[in-house]
Amino acid sequence: MKLKEIGEFGFIERFTPLFNSLLHENQLGIGDDCAIIPANETEDWLVTTDLLMEDVHFLRDAITPEQLGYKSLAVNLSDIAAMGGIPTGSFLSFAIPEGLDVDYLDAFMTGYHELSAKYGVPLLGGDTTKSLKHFAINVCVMGKCQKGTARKRSMAQAGDLVCVTGQLGDSAAGLKIVLDQPTLSAGHEYLIERHHKPEPQLAEGWFLAGFAGTHAMMDISDGIASDLKHILKASGKAATIDIEKLPISETLKNMVAIHQWNAVELAASGGEDYELLVTIAPHDFETIQQQFARRFGKPLYQIGKITNGEPRITWKKDSREIDFGKSGFNHFE
Amino acid sequence: MKLKEIGEFGFIERFTPLFNSLLHENQLGIGDDCAIIPANETEDWLVTTDLLMEDVHFLRDAITPEQLGYKSLAVNLSDIAAMGGIPTGSFLSFAIPEGLDVDYLDAFMTGYHELSAKYGVPLLGGDTTKSLKHFAINVCVMGKCQKGTARKRSMAQAGDLVCVTGQLGDSAAGLKIVLDQPTLSAGHEYLIERHHKPEPQLAEGWFLAGFAGTHAMMDISDGIASDLKHILKASGKAATIDIEKLPISETLKNMVAIHQWNAVELAASGGEDYELLVTIAPHDFETIQQQFARRFGKPLYQIGKITNGEPRITWKKDSREIDFGKSGFNHFE
Repeated sequence: MKLKEIGEFGFIERFTPLFNSLLHENQLGIGDDCAIIPANETEDWLVTTDLLMEDVHFLRDAITPEQLGYKSLAVNLSDIAAMGGIPTGSFLSFAIPEGLDVDYLDAFMTGYHELSAKYGVPLLGGDTTKSLKHFAINVCVMGKCQKGTARKRSMAQAGDLVCVTGQLGDSAAGLKIVLDQPTLSAGHEYLIERHHKPEPQLAEGWFLAGFAGTHAMMDISDGIASDLKHILKASGKAATIDIEKLPISETLKNMVAIHQWNAVELAASGGEDYELLVTIAPHDFETIQQQFARRFGKPLYQIGKITNGEPRITWKKDSREIDFGKSGFNHFE
Repeated sequence: MKLKEIGEFGFIERFTPLFNSLLHENQLGIGDDCAIIPANETEDWLVTTDLLMEDVHFLRDAITPEQLGYKSLAVNLSDIAAMGGIPTGSFLSFAIPEGLDVDYLDAFMTGYHELSAKYGVPLLGGDTTKSLKHFAINVCVMGKCQKGTARKRSMAQAGDLVCVTGQLGDSAAGLKIVLDQPTLSAGHEYLIERHHKPEPQLAEGWFLAGFAGTHAMMDISDGIASDLKHILKASGKAATIDIEKLPISETLKNMVAIHQWNAVELAASGGEDYELLVTIAPHDFETIQQQFARRFGKPLYQIGKITNGEPRITWKKDSREIDFGKSGFNHFE
């Protein structure tokens, strides 16, 4: 049996029960954006890790080393943001192809440092070794949050409003441009930048976690069609998403018109937006939305609702149910 | 400029100062077996990470998947042992070649779980993705120790005795057998097992850290010729090693006689023994050595002495200085 037959999550489910019997008291292990480990009387600590492989997650010719360094850390900080935490340190391992120049690595570290300095995240350790072919980068980030306040995927409740912290689909469009290289047009740079240099929503995650009405959170890495399903499965709930409410940037709207792409598909299943997906109690939503807009100068977009039922998403357009077959990116498809 | 011109450590030195300005209070960052992070009133937490690449660190045909899973965790637990800590959780990322069978991965997880269960270390998270060619494995392990008691490389003092917790060179001989495939003879299996399934010296590290007379510790991953230099550099001390005191197993002695290998070279610079290298105050040595032998049923081997001076090793045989040019394994040579 090959891995693609069972997929990434099918494989993880094979060994998770075996290891869960080793969990210490109050530890949250496999299955959320971060692990949660009780550290002291007032804090829980959060840990997340991501492995980026050349030619799978990035093309070395398409992304600058500064951007790659920035993004390698950003995708991990995004997981800390998704729990409502603050990052406290990072660990960076890389396997370096022999032909890679030190200048390239210096530039990588410049990008990694730019984001580290922005959020005051020290680089605490790592590993440096060689690779025979592909550049491999593993980042592990630690963070913290007030004890018992980490937002888990399992916290969605029926009636919650499903919200996102920013526009969706830009990153996926940026990737299409990088891969397909259609004739360059206005807006390409913006979309490619959104793909190559995503901004972790740390301030947003921390802010939202300050409200009791903020229930489940996760970051959007595979696209909401896939990511929201994780929340639904963990919470034992269903959801309805109104595709007309998916926030799409003007740049992306112009771009889909030119290239005849499908904006909804990019927004729903494109992935790598690294915005936060959050479910909010309906009676708290207005307050949170207003304060969010005041604090960040951008809307908190409400795109749907959590309901009771089997874990699945009902997609609606003009209040009519539509079929949306394409699921999020499966790394082994 | 290529990386091999400056080496792994030359590269790390290029960016370390930039990131050290981001360190939080009492954090120990890059440069020891683990990072040290104050967690609460009584504990410091330890974090280490290692990246293993196929065809650089292991040959998929030569090591069983169970052994590879075991070893991937063992080399990280060894770093926790080197600080005198107890492991509390692990994170496992892997990039999996598409052709790899799920049976192979199940066997990998069986080996990883065997060692996890032995020391009660839960698997708390990770990342699973695909690789176009090589199997890549990154493990990150967290641990803890009593506040302020982590043993650092910088703690060696002049007069300390240099000791190791077990026999050296077996692993390097095991690797030679795997690579050169000489005619099989008695003892091959033992040496290959020592290479493929190293045992982290967790109980030994924890025991040794219980004595105030235990100063610097680290684990032997690259061979003492290279590893001891890290202690000397961090402590600003020199050392003398008596090569006749290097503990060499009977199996290895027989093997070097057959193959005309150099046992001292294997013991001093072969690497991957994952025994602990420790410096001990002379007035405490006898007590520690006796109690160590009683507790573990094996000797604590004294192989040399820390002295004042520039960070270098003087190798002695029959009390005469000898030249030992070959340095430890440099990943980029």
